[in-house]
Amino acid sequence: MSVVKLVLAYDGTDFHGWARQPGQRTIEGELVRVLETVLREPPTLSVAGRTDAGVHARGQEVSFAAEIEPSRIQRVVNGALAPEVVVVWASHAPDGFDARFSATAREYRYRIDAGPIPDPFTARYIWHRPGELRVSAMRAAARALVGEQDFASFGRAPNEGGDTVRRLEKLTVFRRGDRLEIVARANAFIQQMVRSLVGTLVDVGDERIDPRDVPAILQARDRARAGRVAPPHGLTLERAVYAPGGRPAMYRAGSPGPARG
Amino acid sequence: MSVVKLVLAYDGTDFHGWARQPGQRTIEGELVRVLETVLREPPTLSVAGRTDAGVHARGQEVSFAAEIEPSRIQRVVNGALAPEVVVVWASHAPDGFDARFSATAREYRYRIDAGPIPDPFTARYIWHRPGELRVSAMRAAARALVGEQDFASFGRAPNEGGDTVRRLEKLTVFRRGDRLEIVARANAFIQQMVRSLVGTLVDVGDERIDPRDVPAILQARDRARAGRVAPPHGLTLERAVYAPGGRPAMYRAGSPGPARG
Repeated sequence: MSVVKLVLAYDGTDFHGWARQPGQRTIEGELVRVLETVLREPPTLSVAGRTDAGVHARGQEVSFAAEIEPSRIQRVVNGALAPEVVVVWASHAPDGFDARFSATAREYRYRIDAGPIPDPFTARYIWHRPGELRVSAMRAAARALVGEQDFASFGRAPNEGGDTVRRLEKLTVFRRGDRLEIVARANAFIQQMVRSLVGTLVDVGDERIDPRDVPAILQARDRARAGRVAPPHGLTLERAVYAPGGRPAMYRAGSPGPARG
Repeated sequence: MSVVKLVLAYDGTDFHGWARQPGQRTIEGELVRVLETVLREPPTLSVAGRTDAGVHARGQEVSFAAEIEPSRIQRVVNGALAPEVVVVWASHAPDGFDARFSATAREYRYRIDAGPIPDPFTARYIWHRPGELRVSAMRAAARALVGEQDFASFGRAPNEGGDTVRRLEKLTVFRRGDRLEIVARANAFIQQMVRSLVGTLVDVGDERIDPRDVPAILQARDRARAGRVAPPHGLTLERAVYAPGGRPAMYRAGSPGPARG
């Protein structure tokens, strides 16, 4: 069997997240339902980022084993699910490629509109949170969060009692006018980690949290110490990062498990 | 009674157009329902552009008589209807101002995505119509349509047997990459006129209609002669134009007030 790789974009608004769940409309569930009609049996999908309910994607990556022309998969899936879920790219991948385990990092972008008036045309994808934010304080807090750290204060391990150490490679705050964007890249994320990091940065920007307290919040390993969890609709999985050649990355002992939004 | 003027933006996707209709969810219907709670009686709204089902607005203008602080109207309406319908601006207008009859022109913008792959994040507001369009031919056709003309081939008069002569001041095709935008400005439009003009330009761009046939299509006064009617979701009412004297002096004065209640 060959490995087929899809790059997906989706509007997560009306989905209960990526992962299949009985009785819920999920992206994985819809995708498997359509793929099943072409492949004759339900494929086992490997995915770069298991996005939560309401979270979007522009560069989600999925892989599965199948003997089929990738362009046919793209045509069938887009015919059934576009424009809500779109296969942006479909190709064969090298043997051993796995969208989850071969990824060395995931990059998310959180969009905030701090202007006074909501915008009907961006409201599905941007968190409208009116009022000035102190960007320099947010950047100071972000710098204290980058690195290999225990993020137990900022989310849950995918499995009860699992490891909460992740390597946050980048946490950058961009501003243009009333629009803020926060880019977060890590080897993997624990559950709700991006939204909890963003909510904490916004609390810093609001002067509810002093940026100098961020190291203590990390050390506390206590979710009650971090800031709010930002709403899901501002968050988009932008891309997964793979080593050149797409070879599986070496993970340290104790796999971090699936990435989360 | 003073005249209150609102500038509205809305996502028309889930509305049956502007105009109130029994048993239908319309923008006017929702707005009147909310205004009634503040004004104690339903206001009579005058509107610059009666948008069709599925058509959006960024700069729709509405006026009505009321003794109330405009900023309070903005707060209440946005509290009830944002982000789907948003009061972008609220102010008093001079005596005699009427959003419909004082307007000298309306400007619409139609957005087309001619790229191969649909985009989940623009699909509500942009018509995805994959494949190259001959923009120079579209521009030639557009030039033949501008002017004071009888547009009976491109729509219906609002009233049975009514006048179909309108002054089309501007019909411009912009392109950037796969994205096309068509701006149409007229003193007023007959029903479905913008979408019929756009559909005809797209048929010209597709080589289904020769741009040299456009004068004959106009002269025919026959809807069967024009091109397709483009779908509503690509269309946005961008603004209404008022004569400099008709523009309320205090339009830019004062504070727009808070966005939400």
